[in-house]
This record gives sequence, C-alpha cells and structure tokens, in this order.
Amino acid sequence: MTTTHHLPVRVYYEDTDAGGIVYYASYLRFLERGRTEWIRARGLSLHSLYETEGLLFVVRRVEADYLRPAVLDDVLEVVTELRALGGARIEMTQRVGRAGEVLFSAVVILVCVGRDGRPQRLTEDLRQRLSGG
Amino acid sequence: MTTTHHLPVRVYYEDTDAGGIVYYASYLRFLERGRTEWIRARGLSLHSLYETEGLLFVVRRVEADYLRPAVLDDVLEVVTELRALGGARIEMTQRVGRAGEVLFSAVVILVCVGRDGRPQRLTEDLRQRLSGG
Amino acid sequence: MTTTHHLPVRVYYEDTDAGGIVYYASYLRFLERGRTEWIRARGLSLHSLYETEGLLFVVRRVEADYLRPAVLDDVLEVVTELRALGGARIEMTQRVGRAGEVLFSAVVILVCVGRDGRPQRLTEDLRQRLSGG
Amino acid sequence: MTTTHHLPVRVYYEDTDAGGIVYYASYLRFLERGRTEWIRARGLSLHSLYETEGLLFVVRRVEADYLRPAVLDDVLEVVTELRALGGARIEMTQRVGRAGEVLFSAVVILVCVGRDGRPQRLTEDLRQRLSGG
Repeated sequence: MTTTHHLPVRVYYEDTDAGGIVYYASYLRFLERGRTEWIRARGLSLHSLYETEGLLFVVRRVEADYLRPAVLDDVLEVVTELRALGGARIEMTQRVGRAGEVLFSAVVILVCVGRDGRPQRLTEDLRQRLSGG
Repeated sequence: MTTTHHLPVRVYYEDTDAGGIVYYASYLRFLERGRTEWIRARGLSLHSLYETEGLLFVVRRVEADYLRPAVLDDVLEVVTELRALGGARIEMTQRVGRAGEVLFSAVVILVCVGRDGRPQRLTEDLRQRLSGG
Repeated sequence: MTTTHHLPVRVYYEDTDAGGIVYYASYLRFLERGRTEWIRARGLSLHSLYETEGLLFVVRRVEADYLRPAVLDDVLEVVTELRALGGARIEMTQRVGRAGEVLFSAVVILVCVGRDGRPQRLTEDLRQRLSGG
Repeated sequence: MTTTHHLPVRVYYEDTDAGGIVYYASYLRFLERGRTEWIRARGLSLHSLYETEGLLFVVRRVEADYLRPAVLDDVLEVVTELRALGGARIEMTQRVGRAGEVLFSAVVILVCVGRDGRPQRLTEDLRQRLSGG
C-alpha cells in the first residue's frame, strides 16, 4: 500500500467567497475529506470507530500555508501523507494542488481521544493500519 | 412578550460566494440563528433541551423565496414569528431584511423528535413557552 | 442524452451537526453540486458562462422536504432533473437519496441574470443545451 | 484606541459537527469575523476597500492550536491583536475563549493584494489606521 493518498475535489460556489477565490476555511474542509478517505483507504471508517470504539481523531494543531488561490470549477487534488505516529498522536502533511502546482500545504497534528475527550493510546492494530503496514 | 423576534446578522466573507453575493444556503444558517434566539428569548435552550430531555427540533420543510441579493458587510435582520403549533409540529415564518426591505422570506416547518428520531408531542409547558404565553 | 443526472456525494464531518445528522443547510450545498454537474454534463461551465457572457443562474425559490436524516460516512446520491424552461426561468426537481431511499426532495426555481443582476432571456443555444436537445 | 479587539460569538448548530463539538474549520470563520470587526473598529470596511481601492487582505499563513472544545450554545469571545506590520504584510494573533479560558489560539499572516492578486504595499494612511495610531 502506498503511503500517499490522492483525492480529487471539485470547487463549487459553496467553497468560494466574494473575493472570487476559494475561502480560506474551505481548505480545512478539503483536508478533512482527504484525511477521511486516507483512513478509509486503510480499511477504517471514522463513523464506525466512533460508534463501536468511541474513538475520535481531533485536530490539535494546523500549520497552513496559502500559496496560490483556487477558483470556481477548479479540479483540485488533496494529497495526504502520514508523517509520524506517536502514542495518541498522528502527524500528517497535506497539500492541495491543481495540475501539478501546489496551491496550499499544511501540517496537521491529530490526537486520538475517547468519548470523554481524553487522549487515548492508539492500539497496536490501529497503529499498523494507519501506518499502512 | 412580543411574538416577533428580531436578530441582527452581519454578512462576512464566509457567507458570500464568487458571484459576489450571499450564498443561497447561508440564508438557512441565518434562519436557524434566528430560530435559536427566538427559542432562547422564550427561556429555552436547544442545547439543554437536547441534553436534559433528549428533544430536538428538526426541520421537515422549508419554502424559501430569494427576492433580492445581500452583499458583504451588509447588516441584515432576521425576523422570526410563530405561525402555528400542532401536536409535535411548529410552523414558523421568517424573513431576512436590510434597512426595512425584505430580501428573503421563508416558511419553515419543524417537528419535535426524541433521541430515537421519532416525533414527540410537545408538552403543555413547552407549548406555552413557545407560544409566548 | 438522458435528462436525469446522478451525482454521488459522501457525507463528511463538515456536513453534519451536533444533532448527529446532516445539517439542514448542507442539502442546499449538495443540490448546488448536483445542478453544477448537471450543467457541466450539458457541455457548459458556470465559471465560463460568468466570465465570458456575464451570466449567472440565481436561485429564486426553493421548496425542500426533509424526509429522513443522513449521517456521517453515508454515500448519498443527488438526482437532478429539468422540469420546465421559461424565458429566463429554469425549474428543476432534485432529490437526495441513499441506497434507493429518498431522504430529501426539492423543487428549485432559478433565474438567469446578467452582471447587473437583471433577468436575462436564455439564448436559443443555451435553451437547447439545458434541455439536453 | 486599544489595540486589542473583542468580539462575542454564539455557537449555533451550523458551527458544530457530529462529534458534538465545534467543527475545526469553524474557528477560521470566527477568526475572520474577528479580523473584520477589528478592521471596522479602525474606521475601515473590507467591502469598500475592495470596491473603491481594489484591495483585499488575503491570508498567507495560519498557525492554529486547538486547546479545548467548544459546544453548542457556548458564548465565545474572539480576541484579535496586531502583532506586526510589514510592507504589504500584516501579522496578527487571535484567540477564541470562553469565560476567560482560552480554547483556541492562532497566528495569522495576511498580505495586502490588488485586483491582480499581487502584493500591494500598504499606504501610510492604511498603516496608521491599522496600527490604531
């Protein structure tokens, strides 16, 4: 299994603002779609992780660089990669590109928490699946 | 207590789209803010109704007329009125205006449901509070 | 060319709310994706219609029925059909389904406007493309 | 004029997700409301800066720390401060709190661009207004 995940995303009116470009918070929505599909590609589902094991991956930190604007009707690509796995911590690099050009790049730190909102150590099974092993 | 509730809403970039005007789905967000504050003005809170009694007001139907566009930086007013109260059903009229001009108007039908998603008859206490009695 | 257009839509966290279901305004975002792809399937692009001819399709009225809730991770299908074409007016029926079950249905009235925001008669070419002729 | 701006923000369903908390991208919407009102408090309007001078403040970088979750019905406070002013660059610190507790903090780098999307040096008048002088 490759460790890099690619998700195509089309830009609709909902993603844009009156400046004529994609609204800056929309990129975080695109990143989250990318992470969700990256997780699904590892045979996991956010919904069932929450329903069956009470686990949520919550975002702890985002460093985001906005390099070039995207516009209505663009076909973007969200690229998602695992950078590091800690005890309850997942570090990812993600970028949004268009035709090979990087428009946006980010480092996202996630923490695995239980229903009580407290950090929960990743099980060995979960670690192996997330690392694509 | 008056039966008509007024909520001022400022238009930010998040509400607009690349057409330069307020995005059509944003009005439904404004309406929901208006209904929430209308409920709060009756001494109720959506959060505590859900946490303590397991009650949710879910939208069953929306009829929305888009009359004139709103733009960035506009100060809008969401006007909310109760039209009718049925067993588990709440019928409201809402409009969004700017400086006395109606830009958008809607009829919204809500149904009160329990944690299982099934319609739940409004208690007499709830009916009295909602009707401002 | 068939007159019915089908678009798959995955439900992400961004589409849901604290009630645990898809937020009611999210359906309008899904509808707009459906209409945009319906237009693209007719060889047209909203972005280029606006950039080259100054034409926008603005929503004039929405009648929306919320029949059953959708939840995180659902794969939905947005079904889009042309119902009637007037001078500057487009009438559509749209629904959102899951595994053959209709969760949401709507009638959407659009008006074609120019850069000045005034209704603009559809050209014969545009009418033919939109009606799939 | 104080250099710190405070904006109250109420949490509605639109801001939350199926995890029961405020969706991570919603904080960027709150920050942008805070920056817009911070600018307005300096006698400037984003809309008129764009309409009359063709100036836009675009976000170049965001570093965001999610410390504690916010939930439905919370009253939050967005605190906005200018950290540094460069030629075409504005550096801000922003945080979102609840009852004196910091839930979220961010550093946001903005660049002033013209209609062509290129960086545009801030005029002396604009610099003075932004720095609250």
